[in-house]
Amino acid sequence: MQRLDAAAADFEQAFAALLDDKRETAADVNDSVAAIIADVRARGDQALIDYTARFDRLPGLTPSGLAIPAAEVDAALARVPAELMAALELAAERIRDFHRRQLPEGYQYTDAAGVRLGCRWTAVQAAGLYVPGGTAAYPSSVLMNAIPAKVAGVGRLVMVVPTPDGQLNPLVLAAARLAGIDEIYRIGGAQAVAALAYGTATIRLVDKIVGPGNAYVAAAKRQVFGAVGIDMIAGPSEILVVADGANDPAWIAADLLSQAEHDTAAQSILITDDAAFGERVAAAVETHLATLPRAAIARESWNAHGAIVTVSHLDQAVALIDRIAPEHLELAVADPDALAAKVTNAGAIFLGRYTPEAVGDYIGGPNHVLPTARSARFSSGLGVHDFMKRTTLLGCDAQSLRAIGPAAVALAAAEGLGAHGLSVALRLNIPRS
Amino acid sequence: MQRLDAAAADFEQAFAALLDDKRETAADVNDSVAAIIADVRARGDQALIDYTARFDRLPGLTPSGLAIPAAEVDAALARVPAELMAALELAAERIRDFHRRQLPEGYQYTDAAGVRLGCRWTAVQAAGLYVPGGTAAYPSSVLMNAIPAKVAGVGRLVMVVPTPDGQLNPLVLAAARLAGIDEIYRIGGAQAVAALAYGTATIRLVDKIVGPGNAYVAAAKRQVFGAVGIDMIAGPSEILVVADGANDPAWIAADLLSQAEHDTAAQSILITDDAAFGERVAAAVETHLATLPRAAIARESWNAHGAIVTVSHLDQAVALIDRIAPEHLELAVADPDALAAKVTNAGAIFLGRYTPEAVGDYIGGPNHVLPTARSARFSSGLGVHDFMKRTTLLGCDAQSLRAIGPAAVALAAAEGLGAHGLSVALRLNIPRS
Repeated sequence: MQRLDAAAADFEQAFAALLDDKRETAADVNDSVAAIIADVRARGDQALIDYTARFDRLPGLTPSGLAIPAAEVDAALARVPAELMAALELAAERIRDFHRRQLPEGYQYTDAAGVRLGCRWTAVQAAGLYVPGGTAAYPSSVLMNAIPAKVAGVGRLVMVVPTPDGQLNPLVLAAARLAGIDEIYRIGGAQAVAALAYGTATIRLVDKIVGPGNAYVAAAKRQVFGAVGIDMIAGPSEILVVADGANDPAWIAADLLSQAEHDTAAQSILITDDAAFGERVAAAVETHLATLPRAAIARESWNAHGAIVTVSHLDQAVALIDRIAPEHLELAVADPDALAAKVTNAGAIFLGRYTPEAVGDYIGGPNHVLPTARSARFSSGLGVHDFMKRTTLLGCDAQSLRAIGPAAVALAAAEGLGAHGLSVALRLNIPRS
Repeated sequence: MQRLDAAAADFEQAFAALLDDKRETAADVNDSVAAIIADVRARGDQALIDYTARFDRLPGLTPSGLAIPAAEVDAALARVPAELMAALELAAERIRDFHRRQLPEGYQYTDAAGVRLGCRWTAVQAAGLYVPGGTAAYPSSVLMNAIPAKVAGVGRLVMVVPTPDGQLNPLVLAAARLAGIDEIYRIGGAQAVAALAYGTATIRLVDKIVGPGNAYVAAAKRQVFGAVGIDMIAGPSEILVVADGANDPAWIAADLLSQAEHDTAAQSILITDDAAFGERVAAAVETHLATLPRAAIARESWNAHGAIVTVSHLDQAVALIDRIAPEHLELAVADPDALAAKVTNAGAIFLGRYTPEAVGDYIGGPNHVLPTARSARFSSGLGVHDFMKRTTLLGCDAQSLRAIGPAAVALAAAEGLGAHGLSVALRLNIPRS
């Protein structure tokens, strides 16, 4: 963890270095991924069966065995403790309620010239959700990715999830059921992405693929982009906590560690106007690390990428926040709304001392799939819009075309596009330029 | 041009081949582009000056000479004929009016548990617009790319445009002025994209880069993506016209050619329920080609990629339209609204016999930057949203955290994320799992 002081002479240099901190070292797996994709396109289901036998140690599948049937989901649900099922249900309900409000509205109007204009939103017809297997199989991610798709109106939502050695977290299936997923297949890796993008005899192709995955999955998503849409490729998680000295240092330390424990490449930053408070947080981090199950990961992240930045006044934090453009921004200050109103770039903002970021990861309602690596400068968290697209509408009749068409003819002539001008001019019975 | 008949036994095969028609052969310029980007990052303005001297034959620039000053724009405006200036002004006004209606609204609410929730939209702080030089310098594209950015509220909108041999279409500068562009630089190619993405002493970096360009520009945009946002990389243009036999074949032929004349890789498809009408259109295409200035390009496109598809009833067209997911969809039929309502996948729809697609390219109001290559299945034309991003807001107090926090603690424990649970449990004074 490094300490930065905004009043220090070398602060700008140190802060710029913090922004440039390259935390990710993606393995180059493009060639193996390209080979897998080509093989799935060529051999379809059999390629999926072969890769699943090899990578997930799950031999002897048949094409019909690729699907996880409803009965298997039912059986998994029966194994989920009631308390957890209730927590998942509450999460699903709150996420659904938050995202329903995002449904965009189109518009239609007829202008003064008599031209009819409009813009309408429709859902993507079919979407695929990648869910990692093993330890990274998070039911919360299933809810966060699937519910916006269903709220958008996606007719067919397909989940793929690898089941290494046949193991699958029953909570993941419970979340899939709650989110309304229509089909589930026990496949993963680049082969699953290829199946979603190009289809096989058993798995019909989709129009868009979302969800997190390892380097192979990320590379596969990049390679199939164009044939299908993809969501953003997420980088390691980040949190920026802005906290004054009136906070409990143990609370803030836990918040910083809740990102650090995700990944050794995660980054946790504290901005405070109270240097002594910052030191108390640093000490509390050490105290927590002694008891946390993922302390080794969290410590490596905190040591390598963590930072405590001291500013002389919290207003100074605004410019720093916008430059960091954090995925998660926690404002543990007396008037969080006033500070939030000054911020432009952040994926999600958590307001006040009683809103730890983790409550948003699970149960708050807003999406936890958020822009990383400073991309909140230009992009948004996952939402209903990601599963919809806009179509514009334009309608002239003879009279309104006469009002606006001649300008199109003039501009087409200026751009040297003769057929463009001709198509308007013929209808107006005028020369094309 | 090929003829397809939906009633033929081999139709499905022929139609699938039409969908798979790979029209684009992108040159692999990734290595040269990577070298140019690295050079601009290392040498800044001097690299821009050197590449501009070499590629645009414009020697002797100084850093301050990279900018096109307002006086030069004024001088260009003075050279634009009044009729064209009026056409550009009408286009700008109509595009602005259409896009203003796209401004998204956020929302805020407090739920039954007392949790405050919200979603707000803010503009990207700075955006860059690439404008190609030479023959592809279209003033209409400047308006279509720049106006949504300004409507979104982008504070700083920067245009880059190469000026080969010092030449620049005055209409492009006029469009830049009308659109409210804040800074213009006489640079192009991968070097201009690098300057926008990483900044130089003279050109401050932006957060998002949009606009069309050649293979070098497209490769540079792909390479800088992540450091900045980019728009979609557009493929060759396409039109799908659905027309019944009551149309004038000459009008429809001109519409098909207005895409074909863009590019030899463009694609024009007609779907009709009247085979004889289709043949009259094919004949009218030949007639038009005899007089069009860009006949060579249009003929190559039409011969290689054009198609006339005959269906027995126009309702049959709907499924074909959705599979093609056309960039431009023209519905030259008696009841275009009824047909449009059945279509899911299309970038822009042009309603009725008096709405040639070219009117939308220039003057209609909707954007002409639209999803190509079947990507209207999952993506949208350029709009105000592309220059904005969403931030979600979540605020608990002690009481509302007590209502929803325990579920987060339970789910964090189930996912094995101890610090997540701890951050909530500490605030509730409960065990973390």
